[in-house]
Amino acid sequence: MDQRVSLITLGVTDLGRSRAFYESLGWRGQEVEETVFFQAGGLGLVLWGREVLALDCGLPDGRGTGFAGIVLAHNLRSRQDVDALLAAARRAGATVTEPARETSYGGYAGCFADPDGHLWEIAHNPGFPLAEDGSLTIPDLGPP
Amino acid sequence: MDQRVSLITLGVTDLGRSRAFYESLGWRGQEVEETVFFQAGGLGLVLWGREVLALDCGLPDGRGTGFAGIVLAHNLRSRQDVDALLAAARRAGATVTEPARETSYGGYAGCFADPDGHLWEIAHNPGFPLAEDGSLTIPDLGPP
Repeated sequence: MDQRVSLITLGVTDLGRSRAFYESLGWRGQEVEETVFFQAGGLGLVLWGREVLALDCGLPDGRGTGFAGIVLAHNLRSRQDVDALLAAARRAGATVTEPARETSYGGYAGCFADPDGHLWEIAHNPGFPLAEDGSLTIPDLGPP
Repeated sequence: MDQRVSLITLGVTDLGRSRAFYESLGWRGQEVEETVFFQAGGLGLVLWGREVLALDCGLPDGRGTGFAGIVLAHNLRSRQDVDALLAAARRAGATVTEPARETSYGGYAGCFADPDGHLWEIAHNPGFPLAEDGSLTIPDLGPP
């Protein structure tokens, strides 16, 4: 198994609402057969009905309660960018679950939940370089 | 907000078990301060304690029950590769939640759950090209 992720699929309860949320943050996607596909760097971020997504994985759609145990991060080049994006997400209808604050690693980050509760951490981490195209490189973190 | 994801963080209950699981599938990571970082194409896949991850997002760690509503996909170049990876994942301790089968889009896919229940779809999708470096491109899907 190569070290890569091809798609991230978010199960949603109202495709139009979720698409509008991401588009209000500037994303542009393609909708086909009640599925929205966004190109996100070298992978695809997909919005699809939660029930069909569960079925596709062979699971019942037991409504998860509380924390789903997975967080996506979007890293930015400055603290000001973090503040601006969290404010834009709030205006777009997100719930800010953790306001931006200093982090233990010398960065600055906050979190929001999208309309279905999917969590995004918005972060400035000066130790994790972002390339021109936005791709992130984990640096050599030293001896284990 | 650019269309990219910087990190995917999986909340885990036993870091050593989870690291061993991904390493038995061939991944190699760096562990720092009870966190494991894997470079995965242009982003990082991170293993971190579920409780601290929830806290970091400002949420209580309510044990999710059932479907978490998010699925990662790993696309491969052939059906045989899908069968081989699902078999390897099972040997590594994963639960295959959906055996590989033909998909509605003319591909072939199955799903497994990692030791914490995080879901991976292993897929061959001839319509979504994989570049030499494994990055995935969402094709022009035609008029909406």
